[in-house]
Amino acid sequence: MSIERVLNARSVAVIGASKIETKRGFQTIRTLIEDKYDGDIFPVNPKEKSILGLKCYRSVSEIKEPVDMALIVTPAQTIPAILEDCGKKGVLGAVILAGGFGELGSEGKELEKKVVTLAKKHSIRLIGPNTSGMLNLKCNLNLVGLRNVPKGDIALLTQSGNMALTLITEATVKSKKGFSYYVGVGNEADINFHEYLEFFREDPATKAILMYVEGMRQGRQFLEQAYQTTIKKPVILLKSGRSSTGKKSAGSHTGALAGMSEVAKGAFERTGIIVIENSDELFPAAETLSSLPPTRKNTVAILADGGGHATIASDLLTDLGIEIPELSEKTQSKLKELLPSAASVPNPVDVAGGTDSNPAVFAECAKIILKDPKIGGLIIVGLFGGYGIRFAESLSVIEEDAAHMMGKMVRNGKKPIILHSLYSSAGTHALDLLRHYGIPVYDSLDITCKCMSVLVKYGNYLKAAHTKTSYIIKTGEKAKSAGIDIIQNCIKSGRNALFEFEAKKLLKLHGAPVSKDRPSTTADEAVKIAEGMNGKVVLKIISQDILHKSDAGGVRVGLGSEKEVRYAFEEIMKNARDYNPAAKIEGILVSPMAAKGVEVIIGTKTDDQFGPVIMYGLGGIMVEILKDVSFRVIPISSHSAKKMVDETKSSPILDGVRGEPPCDKKALIKLLLLCSEVIEAYPEIEEMDLNPVIIHEKGLSIVDARIILKDKPEG
Amino acid sequence: MSIERVLNARSVAVIGASKIETKRGFQTIRTLIEDKYDGDIFPVNPKEKSILGLKCYRSVSEIKEPVDMALIVTPAQTIPAILEDCGKKGVLGAVILAGGFGELGSEGKELEKKVVTLAKKHSIRLIGPNTSGMLNLKCNLNLVGLRNVPKGDIALLTQSGNMALTLITEATVKSKKGFSYYVGVGNEADINFHEYLEFFREDPATKAILMYVEGMRQGRQFLEQAYQTTIKKPVILLKSGRSSTGKKSAGSHTGALAGMSEVAKGAFERTGIIVIENSDELFPAAETLSSLPPTRKNTVAILADGGGHATIASDLLTDLGIEIPELSEKTQSKLKELLPSAASVPNPVDVAGGTDSNPAVFAECAKIILKDPKIGGLIIVGLFGGYGIRFAESLSVIEEDAAHMMGKMVRNGKKPIILHSLYSSAGTHALDLLRHYGIPVYDSLDITCKCMSVLVKYGNYLKAAHTKTSYIIKTGEKAKSAGIDIIQNCIKSGRNALFEFEAKKLLKLHGAPVSKDRPSTTADEAVKIAEGMNGKVVLKIISQDILHKSDAGGVRVGLGSEKEVRYAFEEIMKNARDYNPAAKIEGILVSPMAAKGVEVIIGTKTDDQFGPVIMYGLGGIMVEILKDVSFRVIPISSHSAKKMVDETKSSPILDGVRGEPPCDKKALIKLLLLCSEVIEAYPEIEEMDLNPVIIHEKGLSIVDARIILKDKPEG
Repeated sequence: MSIERVLNARSVAVIGASKIETKRGFQTIRTLIEDKYDGDIFPVNPKEKSILGLKCYRSVSEIKEPVDMALIVTPAQTIPAILEDCGKKGVLGAVILAGGFGELGSEGKELEKKVVTLAKKHSIRLIGPNTSGMLNLKCNLNLVGLRNVPKGDIALLTQSGNMALTLITEATVKSKKGFSYYVGVGNEADINFHEYLEFFREDPATKAILMYVEGMRQGRQFLEQAYQTTIKKPVILLKSGRSSTGKKSAGSHTGALAGMSEVAKGAFERTGIIVIENSDELFPAAETLSSLPPTRKNTVAILADGGGHATIASDLLTDLGIEIPELSEKTQSKLKELLPSAASVPNPVDVAGGTDSNPAVFAECAKIILKDPKIGGLIIVGLFGGYGIRFAESLSVIEEDAAHMMGKMVRNGKKPIILHSLYSSAGTHALDLLRHYGIPVYDSLDITCKCMSVLVKYGNYLKAAHTKTSYIIKTGEKAKSAGIDIIQNCIKSGRNALFEFEAKKLLKLHGAPVSKDRPSTTADEAVKIAEGMNGKVVLKIISQDILHKSDAGGVRVGLGSEKEVRYAFEEIMKNARDYNPAAKIEGILVSPMAAKGVEVIIGTKTDDQFGPVIMYGLGGIMVEILKDVSFRVIPISSHSAKKMVDETKSSPILDGVRGEPPCDKKALIKLLLLCSEVIEAYPEIEEMDLNPVIIHEKGLSIVDARIILKDKPEG
Repeated sequence: MSIERVLNARSVAVIGASKIETKRGFQTIRTLIEDKYDGDIFPVNPKEKSILGLKCYRSVSEIKEPVDMALIVTPAQTIPAILEDCGKKGVLGAVILAGGFGELGSEGKELEKKVVTLAKKHSIRLIGPNTSGMLNLKCNLNLVGLRNVPKGDIALLTQSGNMALTLITEATVKSKKGFSYYVGVGNEADINFHEYLEFFREDPATKAILMYVEGMRQGRQFLEQAYQTTIKKPVILLKSGRSSTGKKSAGSHTGALAGMSEVAKGAFERTGIIVIENSDELFPAAETLSSLPPTRKNTVAILADGGGHATIASDLLTDLGIEIPELSEKTQSKLKELLPSAASVPNPVDVAGGTDSNPAVFAECAKIILKDPKIGGLIIVGLFGGYGIRFAESLSVIEEDAAHMMGKMVRNGKKPIILHSLYSSAGTHALDLLRHYGIPVYDSLDITCKCMSVLVKYGNYLKAAHTKTSYIIKTGEKAKSAGIDIIQNCIKSGRNALFEFEAKKLLKLHGAPVSKDRPSTTADEAVKIAEGMNGKVVLKIISQDILHKSDAGGVRVGLGSEKEVRYAFEEIMKNARDYNPAAKIEGILVSPMAAKGVEVIIGTKTDDQFGPVIMYGLGGIMVEILKDVSFRVIPISSHSAKKMVDETKSSPILDGVRGEPPCDKKALIKLLLLCSEVIEAYPEIEEMDLNPVIIHEKGLSIVDARIILKDKPEG
């Protein structure tokens, strides 16, 4: 069932209603009345006759009028019985505030399961449990008990009540913005992040979606919805729980697993979500993106009334990858006419006192600068909004006039202005005016610059978005019957890992250029195989009981002569038996020795939140010591395979350094894609490792391949 | 002359005094009167009789009373005549506000030089020019014209008037802190950063020194003063101007790889300065360090009334390298007694509603946590200070009581508490109380955690500081006469670069293990030298006109037989002539071929602000592609040589990876020290490059050495 009728409920029963002022069962009813909720309120409490002048019911089923939504404020163990009652009544949705479910270990998980089953049975959609509630500011359905939440166009979706309170407080104190909805998703027992996202995407009152996430249950569905949402409106997201302590803290808090943060970040950004790293920037980014046009240019001008702020802003924007180009000659000469001779006009523009007695000059400069086709947006840094405080009270009126001018510029034009003012919190009318026009004002240079950068990031995403066909969440790659045989054969023989030659065979079925490896069981056989290969060979032990072949002395490389092969064969056999006398040895694999080239590693694993993911990195030192790797959610497109390679810091090595020829990047990208396809085709695979793969000037060699199956294979 | 009498002037002449309200010559006098300046004020303006009730003088020399200080607000070109007049009068110091000096090109530089000469002649110490002024809040000597600057114990030293205004505004709006002094250093024409620093170090009213720096003239003296200061009181510094400085130098080879801002940061940190990267953190760091005891432990506890804030704080602290250890069993069981069963007590401590009706529980928890010997400091995150707003007004009183308790804990104990509150700007009495006790309160989780990290950083610096003998600014390494000969010989022959064999000889004089290279002029000679070396050799062209030997085909390696040497000799000669027919060729250097090992690069160059600096990095890909290098100001100690090696990300490679033996790190550290000594001993050297140096399992090989001299050698 759609969640529309739940989030826009026209009547609500408060189960656990109370007369005690500090109780949620009281506060909610009071707020619903105060806020003039646009629907019916039914307090439910068998012990009370009436609460705050409203008739109090003994149970939900006693209510005669239709009940869209139940807010349940009673403890965890009471929920099943209440849901049964709600079911009888035909309630459409319920918000369960109580904790004590999935976040509290196995007993809680059982209870949560029971509650979800009951809800499904009665077609009741659940928000929570373990949530701070929800808030629909369009019809004043305030189930959070918070007073004076500002109305506006930002939808807020969080996994922490305190973070919601933080963001709402910030909106109230520092902006003129507000919210359309707030939902505390809690444990996501029924309604998941992606369903809320879908709803907000279609909600005409919502211009931007602001999210605080610790972990999510249905990562892949979320990505798919996010991809469809960000084309229509910006989604701003902070994912916490990166650190081990953070993860633990998040785990005890929401019950969700705070997944691999690199994977999450990469996956979110790929769908056009604006990922925020610092919670200070979360609300400002949403304020900016819901107020100003995104800019498709990567160029910004700085207008300053002092050198220090301009210097710091230049540093910050440069760090963010934004250019501060010299303004055109025409722009510069126009600015010169307006400003004193000491002014610096190339960019940053420093007015050098040119605004001290007339802050309206800011607006005039802004107008000139924004007309410059080189410039995508403008940041004004310094004292604007405080000239009346700093210099002379009479200047306040001029500032207000300038604010009107700038506001209209932004409203009518397509280029954003963001203001830094050290009088940001002074509450001057000029700054309030700017905010009303949608020009955000911050007292932090850092946040000012970061906000400009999110406009650039979002603008550039939108610019590229139309060229994309669709977000790939399934390419439809099919398993080959021979491949299924390999896997089934492995399972039947009681192994959970494919032998190297099996793994390579599977890869070959999908087009991977694997070497002509052949297993041998005697030294004679090994010699014969080796003779059939042109050049030197490698011998490797085949045993399900020896996973780390090198450690067991089970690998010999660079074998040229018959004698070498024979000797190596016997040696490996002996080493393997010494290493693990009980090991079941299948034989020894003979492979041609790979040519020289650059070593890379490709790996896949299965993430709890996002399912299969793929990792790439340059082999050896780069991965082991510098952790220089990139991740993507599978399946990947050829575009993202290319980006995976390019975004590692060590990628220039593939282009050939110190006299080495460039490597065959195309073959590498093809192999990444192929790995993604194989993983998609065989859901039985838990993880796969190609390590190393050697990339040559032309082609590549998969030196070793390892595939591990899931304990209980799907499909 | 000491600047004490200038910064603590007991009388001040305002030259350029005015009756116009918007003029600085008016505002300053008004503020001096309003603020009740503890000395005499003498307006100087030939056109006025009196200003604001004070007698106005035609010139300084007309004043009969002694004049300690002159504030000069007139334009640049008037300054020389005014200084002459001040000199006659015996004025001790002057603040020159006007711009139009060194910052404006050669003409301005000339004028600045003239002004400095005049000042020296008359023993007048200058603040500025091109400054916003200075402020002594102890005697209300307010020469900035700013009103209502809060008094306190932070000395402020900046190169930007707007940044000063920003910091002063922040102090006023967001803290209960204030300032002892403010100085805008301007162009540092006379008094430099380090002299102010020295003064503030000795000032009993100053507890912390807060600096905004764009660039400094006397970097080395500053470092020396900083080293002596940070043991007594914290110095907090933001250095801006990274972007332009960094990028320009990045083009050339070794020394410039990461730009000079790396040098500045490293140099500052080495002297115990707390270097801040984000201007939002600048004032909070000073507030914290001037209020709370630094902590010598790297362990912090988090106390939260909500999971979201705790999770974010955990992530932030972990990113900052701070541990969040599990509290002792004793601590945990005491907390359990106090808190509801749903509370999480390991660390972060989540009260799980346990404070909702009694915020005093925060103080009780804090007391228990701070007693845990594992814990160095406490961060409280969430709603404290706003319980009266969020829950019930009656809780305000309880919060105030809790604030008193926590304040006393910090005052009497040795462990810091920092508070995050989303009601930070709500102005509640509880939060004001905390601030009065010296517990900072921030609405930003990021800043809260950063502030705790500066206490950790400073505490750890102090802990290590007593083991240091002294800050090395000169080790007294002397030049050898043979070394001086090599350099003089080079200069005499009109070269500015030593030949490779000369450079190696110079290094050898100071103990470097260089190979027995010998120059040859004929193939026969080369063969003969090669025969005397055990093993393969390398031939390299010797020519002052060929700097990049490899590019010119001037290098041949791995030569074993006589035939190979002979052929290589002829080939190199031919290549060199083809490359540059006009090149003066001195011969060909014969060197033994270096054994295998790990390549590193050592470089030195001369920085405008800090003089000679040294760079180290792993050779090849690590430097060229990953820019993985470290910098130090010369001379370095063996301790910092070791740190230079260890702090590169690739340093584990030296310990032996993938079956390679570990490298001789001791030899490498010795060589770094030796390079530092050589540069110190020969001030004629502009830059030196040892590239590559190959580090073996035992010992190392300096494969190539390049030394370039200064255009006009000193000494």
